[in-house]
Amino acid sequence: MSDEVRLIEVKEDIKADNARVAQGLRERMAQSKTFLLNLMSAPGSGKTRTILRTIEELRSRFTFGVLEADIDSKVDAELIAAQGISAVQLRTGGFCHLDASMVVQGLDAMDLAALDVVIIENVGNLVCPAEFDTGAIRSVMILSVPEGDDKPLKYPLMFSVSDVLLINKIDYLGLSDFDVAAARERALRLNPRIEIFEISAKTGQGMEAWTSWLAREASRFLGR
Amino acid sequence: MSDEVRLIEVKEDIKADNARVAQGLRERMAQSKTFLLNLMSAPGSGKTRTILRTIEELRSRFTFGVLEADIDSKVDAELIAAQGISAVQLRTGGFCHLDASMVVQGLDAMDLAALDVVIIENVGNLVCPAEFDTGAIRSVMILSVPEGDDKPLKYPLMFSVSDVLLINKIDYLGLSDFDVAAARERALRLNPRIEIFEISAKTGQGMEAWTSWLAREASRFLGR
Repeated sequence: MSDEVRLIEVKEDIKADNARVAQGLRERMAQSKTFLLNLMSAPGSGKTRTILRTIEELRSRFTFGVLEADIDSKVDAELIAAQGISAVQLRTGGFCHLDASMVVQGLDAMDLAALDVVIIENVGNLVCPAEFDTGAIRSVMILSVPEGDDKPLKYPLMFSVSDVLLINKIDYLGLSDFDVAAARERALRLNPRIEIFEISAKTGQGMEAWTSWLAREASRFLGR
Repeated sequence: MSDEVRLIEVKEDIKADNARVAQGLRERMAQSKTFLLNLMSAPGSGKTRTILRTIEELRSRFTFGVLEADIDSKVDAELIAAQGISAVQLRTGGFCHLDASMVVQGLDAMDLAALDVVIIENVGNLVCPAEFDTGAIRSVMILSVPEGDDKPLKYPLMFSVSDVLLINKIDYLGLSDFDVAAARERALRLNPRIEIFEISAKTGQGMEAWTSWLAREASRFLGR
């Protein structure tokens, strides 16, 4: 299949370029003292609600900005902005992931000097976003209970590249056959260093352990 | 961004080739009298369970085969085969969607003469699978209640290219703020001809209207 080979070559070029842009972005973030966090998940796992709740719990300590990525629409950025949080919507126009140069375009529209932490809400997708370094300091993924505990078996790269796994919607556990121990064990087998927190962004359950982790990481990065 | 332009050109080449392969596949299916159905959704929306329940309700009338696509793992194909159903697992090796030539490779491993209906379980992804014609006669998508009623706004192409929308996991409606009327209205605005069924593949609720639709379409195609 010569077409497939051609596609792969181009993707490799793009990934090599992307790694350079991502590294440049990390250096810029270190200079501007902005902690950049990349949040990934399947569609509908609760990324926006998790961001809102996380910021609500930490906004007395850090100033936040949010970079929203979607194929289309700006409903998430509007939800974030309605809470008085600095938000930029990136429309990827069909692209199924964010790369570092798209993140640079979004950050250029923000006043980074005024922001301690910028959260990137990546495109809802468990496949492609895992393949592209966004330039973030840390990457976090959400797996929500209704999606099922078999997802580490099916989307291993996402679990391998993430620093944190948030098991969200634990308020659905009673209705579901999701096995938390099995999900943890499968994720840890792929990535022994992944930090796992069980949360409900809706009820607030479990949020404190997660926000403590984020506050500690951001404080260390910001040197305070 | 010269790299982006290059990527797009290659993708367009691949899509033109894909359309030809898909059309050839449809002609082959018409000759072998095999109704090919493409099932798409985000990860964890209940594709496998929906397939199992659908086949259980229709297997006295049609012989079924299932083509399972996943980045990795073969857990779904094993689940299907355990029910005595002909199943082939396609590992896409990082590819985030199926194209028609991958489907051809899967079908080549099946005894099509013995099968009335083959269901393709596409990669769990609301973005990329919508962009590639698999060669199927009909495309069906699942949106599950925990994912939220805003998904038509964010992933419009998937709703535009699907013949049927299954709103799955309606047994979760009591716990969720999912607005069925809003989801229907948003899907219909994108695609006025989409057929919408509300189901729970877990409890069986609503399955009959959906399986009646499928039986009618398959019977018409098979000429019986």
